[in-house]
Amino acid sequence: MSADRVARVALGFLVEPGSRELGVLVRAVGAPDALHRVIAGAGITPELAGAVRARLHMAGLHAGATGVAGQLSEQMIAEADRLGARIVTAADDEWPRALDDLAGVSREGSVLRRDTDPPMCVWLRGSARLGGSLERSVSIVGARAISGYGEFVASEFAFGLAERGWTIVSGGALGVDVTAHRGALAAGGLTAAVLACGVDKLYPAANSGVLERIGEEGLLMTEWPPGTHPHKTRFLTRNRVIAAATRGTVVVEAGSRSGARNTLGYARLLHRSAMVVPGPITSATSVGCHIELRVPETVLVTRIDEIIEEIGRIGELAEPIHGADRPEDVLDALQARILDAVPARAAALAEEIAAAAGVSGRDARRSLPLLEELGFVVAVAGGYRLARTPAGPRPAGPTQDAG
Amino acid sequence: MSADRVARVALGFLVEPGSRELGVLVRAVGAPDALHRVIAGAGITPELAGAVRARLHMAGLHAGATGVAGQLSEQMIAEADRLGARIVTAADDEWPRALDDLAGVSREGSVLRRDTDPPMCVWLRGSARLGGSLERSVSIVGARAISGYGEFVASEFAFGLAERGWTIVSGGALGVDVTAHRGALAAGGLTAAVLACGVDKLYPAANSGVLERIGEEGLLMTEWPPGTHPHKTRFLTRNRVIAAATRGTVVVEAGSRSGARNTLGYARLLHRSAMVVPGPITSATSVGCHIELRVPETVLVTRIDEIIEEIGRIGELAEPIHGADRPEDVLDALQARILDAVPARAAALAEEIAAAAGVSGRDARRSLPLLEELGFVVAVAGGYRLARTPAGPRPAGPTQDAG
Repeated sequence: MSADRVARVALGFLVEPGSRELGVLVRAVGAPDALHRVIAGAGITPELAGAVRARLHMAGLHAGATGVAGQLSEQMIAEADRLGARIVTAADDEWPRALDDLAGVSREGSVLRRDTDPPMCVWLRGSARLGGSLERSVSIVGARAISGYGEFVASEFAFGLAERGWTIVSGGALGVDVTAHRGALAAGGLTAAVLACGVDKLYPAANSGVLERIGEEGLLMTEWPPGTHPHKTRFLTRNRVIAAATRGTVVVEAGSRSGARNTLGYARLLHRSAMVVPGPITSATSVGCHIELRVPETVLVTRIDEIIEEIGRIGELAEPIHGADRPEDVLDALQARILDAVPARAAALAEEIAAAAGVSGRDARRSLPLLEELGFVVAVAGGYRLARTPAGPRPAGPTQDAG
Repeated sequence: MSADRVARVALGFLVEPGSRELGVLVRAVGAPDALHRVIAGAGITPELAGAVRARLHMAGLHAGATGVAGQLSEQMIAEADRLGARIVTAADDEWPRALDDLAGVSREGSVLRRDTDPPMCVWLRGSARLGGSLERSVSIVGARAISGYGEFVASEFAFGLAERGWTIVSGGALGVDVTAHRGALAAGGLTAAVLACGVDKLYPAANSGVLERIGEEGLLMTEWPPGTHPHKTRFLTRNRVIAAATRGTVVVEAGSRSGARNTLGYARLLHRSAMVVPGPITSATSVGCHIELRVPETVLVTRIDEIIEEIGRIGELAEPIHGADRPEDVLDALQARILDAVPARAAALAEEIAAAAGVSGRDARRSLPLLEELGFVVAVAGGYRLARTPAGPRPAGPTQDAG
């Protein structure tokens, strides 16, 4: 095992994830030297030194003791083996380079209350290669308390995107998260659950079945070593990985204080696509969605095509929505005006139709034969009247969409 | 009656509203001279000349005949009197100057298929002064076929805005329009219905009761002289007036081809606020809303305050939505991390808590007394454990919104 890998695995245990101080140090001097300094407490802040000391103490290791790094990483690898997991670091081929973007996210000028550096390593269960799996990935996140609407949307989007080869990333939580994971599994697609605890803890217990299945058919991933509990602040730290690992984040339903808004914030900071599904303004579970949709960089999405247009290759454009084509669509503004003035029953002369439409008699005389040819009007003794379409007589009043 | 007023009333009959050619001519030479040329067919396009000839012919008047203008406007004024209506032109005090902005809207570069010049005159029923009534006005428009959701939202918004002194403008149609009018009437507020037909035609018949009431308690207005039928294209021409007359347009529900989208387009062209209410993505009556919300200049609105923030005076800002404050909100990131690591039942030492949180023992020893003082933790023999809050024990797991 390379010294770099050994060091990153040990650092992943010794320092709570996200530390900017550690990240800067590793990028400056390399992981092995950074580990050396961190264990010796040399050239680092007292806060970091103290935190590492507390962790070493907990593990029964002595600061400065020779071979601590080797000991720790051997212990971690043995633990991984025991759990049927593996550890991936930036030194490995399957490391997702997208995570490195986290090094560039600044706390300044953002609402962040925490550091956001890339993970030192990730613990993985599942056979798919991590980097490749995340290349075409999208996260679907949202509140734990969701409505039937949110469940429907999360399920449909995850299923449809997975069917088209997109990896669905989420946080394994109740509500939107687990619904998205299940949707992807149902489609036979790939899904990754990013946990905020050890890979040995299938939290929450209510989702242990589906998380187990994700560990077999998809990917269970976490930055925290086995035995780590899912503290509240860890969910927020974890969210940066969900945002960074994927091309974009879709928030399906979220209350005003949902953590999904935090993930979306990371997506924006990382210049990933920040997508949100609207809902009824009367629904508490869409309040957070609507707050986010009032932020200019947010993209409102209603269909899978619109999501792919955001995150897919250039040219993967969503078909514009338009209602059923109507025969009148072929007419220009003048012709439409003239057609509007043709009576439904008793025929009218071209001049009468012109006066009613507010056009010249000449324009009416020119357009009416064309309208007849297209089947809109019929010429009868005394002028023109509307044709009766196969669908029944054309309504004399304006149609529904005109107002 | 001034010559300008006489000419505008006559031109309002002779030329279908919106004509850019006529508008340019009137602005260049004044209404009386423009009327003269239009009747003589001199210096205008053959299309306009022909259209005017057809209208004159229909009215039994002869092109070029002396006194046609006077005859026509006398006829119009008598008709207005008979109907309990009045005619307002740009020569009158109560003319809403906002309508003049229509002269600056160019067809180029827009999706418009028609001219958009200001009305020559408007026919009015109702005692309120037109200009003053529209100074603080907002239009609420949408589809005719709406859901219970759309009905609820249109009614709530119209009621609330009318209650706060805003005039509610709409098109008098079924669905969102009539619901908005009714909401304003229910609040004892002012509402204006902009019709696409003569003021003598209360179209659609199903709304004749409420339109009648609007003519008494609010304002019924139209550009078309009495007897004019509501042709389909007239609704689109009319929409420009709804957009121009108000400070902003709110679309409540709209299918993909709803005319409300056309009104919103005019609002954007006129630099009025273009506001849209989102809905479930599963609802056909919100499809048009969501298409519009994907246009960058559109503002998503969910509350009356947000509408007023858009159209009100500077400083009329909506209160930001936030969930109930939580005690933890006062903590900084470090304190929150430490609190997360405090066990719920059996107490833990500060050093153990530090190791679990990934902070230094010193930070833990400093923060725990503060957390105790704030009532989050209690110091017991053997260290610290979580305090039991009056609402019951604090859950050990993460709370709902953290993920």
